[in-house]
Amino acid sequence: MNDLKGYFKGEHIVSFDQFDPRSLDVLFTIAKQMREVAQNAKPSRLLEGNIATLLFYEPSSRTMGSFDAAMKQLGGNTVVVTNPQQFSSAAKGESFQDTIRTFEAYCDVIVLRHPETGSVAKAASIAMHVPVINAGDGIGEHPTQALLDLFTIFELKGRLSGLKGLVAGDLLNGRTVHSLLKGLNLYGGNIVYLLAPKELQLPMEFPDSNLTLVTVEDAHDIPRDCDFWYWTRVQKERFSNPADYERVNNRFVVTQAMLDTYGSRHMILMHPLPRVGEIEDAVDEDPRAVYLKSQIRNGMYVRMALLALVLGKAP
Amino acid sequence: MNDLKGYFKGEHIVSFDQFDPRSLDVLFTIAKQMREVAQNAKPSRLLEGNIATLLFYEPSSRTMGSFDAAMKQLGGNTVVVTNPQQFSSAAKGESFQDTIRTFEAYCDVIVLRHPETGSVAKAASIAMHVPVINAGDGIGEHPTQALLDLFTIFELKGRLSGLKGLVAGDLLNGRTVHSLLKGLNLYGGNIVYLLAPKELQLPMEFPDSNLTLVTVEDAHDIPRDCDFWYWTRVQKERFSNPADYERVNNRFVVTQAMLDTYGSRHMILMHPLPRVGEIEDAVDEDPRAVYLKSQIRNGMYVRMALLALVLGKAP
Amino acid sequence: MNDLKGYFKGEHIVSFDQFDPRSLDVLFTIAKQMREVAQNAKPSRLLEGNIATLLFYEPSSRTMGSFDAAMKQLGGNTVVVTNPQQFSSAAKGESFQDTIRTFEAYCDVIVLRHPETGSVAKAASIAMHVPVINAGDGIGEHPTQALLDLFTIFELKGRLSGLKGLVAGDLLNGRTVHSLLKGLNLYGGNIVYLLAPKELQLPMEFPDSNLTLVTVEDAHDIPRDCDFWYWTRVQKERFSNPADYERVNNRFVVTQAMLDTYGSRHMILMHPLPRVGEIEDAVDEDPRAVYLKSQIRNGMYVRMALLALVLGKAP
Repeated sequence: MNDLKGYFKGEHIVSFDQFDPRSLDVLFTIAKQMREVAQNAKPSRLLEGNIATLLFYEPSSRTMGSFDAAMKQLGGNTVVVTNPQQFSSAAKGESFQDTIRTFEAYCDVIVLRHPETGSVAKAASIAMHVPVINAGDGIGEHPTQALLDLFTIFELKGRLSGLKGLVAGDLLNGRTVHSLLKGLNLYGGNIVYLLAPKELQLPMEFPDSNLTLVTVEDAHDIPRDCDFWYWTRVQKERFSNPADYERVNNRFVVTQAMLDTYGSRHMILMHPLPRVGEIEDAVDEDPRAVYLKSQIRNGMYVRMALLALVLGKAP
Repeated sequence: MNDLKGYFKGEHIVSFDQFDPRSLDVLFTIAKQMREVAQNAKPSRLLEGNIATLLFYEPSSRTMGSFDAAMKQLGGNTVVVTNPQQFSSAAKGESFQDTIRTFEAYCDVIVLRHPETGSVAKAASIAMHVPVINAGDGIGEHPTQALLDLFTIFELKGRLSGLKGLVAGDLLNGRTVHSLLKGLNLYGGNIVYLLAPKELQLPMEFPDSNLTLVTVEDAHDIPRDCDFWYWTRVQKERFSNPADYERVNNRFVVTQAMLDTYGSRHMILMHPLPRVGEIEDAVDEDPRAVYLKSQIRNGMYVRMALLALVLGKAP
Repeated sequence: MNDLKGYFKGEHIVSFDQFDPRSLDVLFTIAKQMREVAQNAKPSRLLEGNIATLLFYEPSSRTMGSFDAAMKQLGGNTVVVTNPQQFSSAAKGESFQDTIRTFEAYCDVIVLRHPETGSVAKAASIAMHVPVINAGDGIGEHPTQALLDLFTIFELKGRLSGLKGLVAGDLLNGRTVHSLLKGLNLYGGNIVYLLAPKELQLPMEFPDSNLTLVTVEDAHDIPRDCDFWYWTRVQKERFSNPADYERVNNRFVVTQAMLDTYGSRHMILMHPLPRVGEIEDAVDEDPRAVYLKSQIRNGMYVRMALLALVLGKAP
């Protein structure tokens, strides 16, 4: 590992496309150590004296809380700036460039959330002294979400190749699904079943790749030996005709009966959260349900690892 | 004390009713040590590496500031989440359960403020890994306010039994008064005089108890040897007829003359704050006035003690 | 230096007028050490255990971020309270006095931003235990802005006397300009050229002083050997007649051509920020442009120094 600690040092983390199996291996190895820090080896002073500016142009308590806690779990601290377009000099007409140049002066790393696609890449090109980490830019990228999903599979299934999985729900608009598939395509021998309303089919292909995609039309077509299910929400507003939504909605709710019928014993059930009814609460108690138990925490561990890496302080 | 340090470890603090004289003795002993930390023995690293999520569904700068400072005085840190119902996934329809499960993943303790009575008890039943502390749930409980009031009497009068006191103002709706009386009822030989407009009399009784309650009708009926006065606000909106309010309002303002006429020399004058005129500013300089001098600080010390206890790190 | 470390200990920082060349020398010497801390000597524990309450009655992400980072760069922490008039007991009618007395109880220093002139002086007269630092009170004072401007000249030109400079833009309303001139007037032999629309001329005089002021009417009257230019914004809303604004506006934008024609090689180009077009973006790359490169960071260093001084912990 010693020669890998320099990975990402000082680098902007703009897109999931920056990662390959080798760098993911580094990241996930460190994320596991971070879990140990947060659970058993506190206090850590790894990032003592380091400051992250959490620059959020739109609210996102969950992502902000995760990054905020990640810095603090490692003994670092944060400066929180929300809605600068409304409450700061940006409201007086200051350019995005001047805002980024201002807030980078106070800190060692900027974590940026912005409603406009491409704005994190723009910020990365502006910042002269500190790395910028993408915490979601509109319908663009949200790389740490993708990283935590892959890390969860890696950790709980022990590998990222030779997997059989299911992704279900809104595959057309589901940014997290697209990133997950991109990630699995980096490894060999994965096969993923796609279950979606006909209005919300996957819009992308992975030709000439090791990733095999198989469209299924109903739950009874799901193979009984999946390693994971990755469930997402079907949003009412995606349908021009409300009746179409009502027709498909019930088919896209995970119940205990459905899990017991179609799921394997060793599988894990994932969800990017938030959920609004598409997995029944009763399922939470099933040991296979990992969205609350593992994914949320893994998000913090992956962010801890990423912050340590870009700050050049990975353990 | 050694055998008492385990008190409250990992426990939710939902209601003042969880406390008895033995546990209050533990808490107040530690709160005194916390005053020493904040005033003379800084920096403390008692809670280094620990994170409290301050989850506030309604704003309360005072209570939030007190808890926030309490963690930081002890070398801990906080993740602040305000109005998650508006700014986070909860706005997208996420359940209260998922919100609690999410934010507990980032921290070691949740401090929860919520406008609905019972929501802290609900959160406590949801949280699987961390204790939840009630920072006020609507017209329900606000146990740390009650604890700081009792601690202030204990500290400044040296005991919580054999006291003679006065509570005045709105005794009908005054949550802090009700908790104070409950607390004094845990000890022996206390007598409390009640002074309130006839519309706002105390709605509860303490039959078969050691606490003696005596209703008085006017200031000249207050015994001259009280150990404490606990004053509260009479709110205009409690009266259906504004004329009734005007009639009683002047009688429920503490002036220096009134304090000198009816108060004892050794008494303390308390108020839960905020006040809006019901104690004249001139009275602040009187050494008996402890609402600004002691109660606010004591609130922080009690919260420091409570955080240390539930985190299993009491000194 | 040893005998100077006590400077400002426990003092309120309300106005720039509290400073003289001797105390500025102390402050700037420490600010240079602070730059070393932030850039090379992290982590610092100088302010470990100390808490600053950032009490902001109006939003100002830039100033708040700078103070917030300043505390954290030194191992201290902050309690952030925004808009207490809206979100705290102040909303219930609590007096300014009670609000200050409350928040001082939680911390070691209050940093106060308020829209009303004089409110910081008022807060300073109320606070009984902790120093109050002015982070801007309406059209009144914003002393740390003035201090960072002087520090920038001192650091980059090596002295604060015998300088030749230009101030340009809105000299009538420009609070930062007035403070800068006051500062330069503390030292000997400075000459400052004033370039402003006739509607926005400097409203003050410095009679019987060492500071020489010379009004110029156009860019070609600027002497070619200035040590600094200090540029400010001409705001449209200052003109009753929009046509007047249009007429002057173009003359008050710094372009690369203008800088190359009228500026000296060794000069520095300053701006208090935010800017809204009055310095062309292309100029940012010029080594003489120090508003983004130096001034923002210097603001943090000066605030670090000031916090350490009032807390009695200057290195």
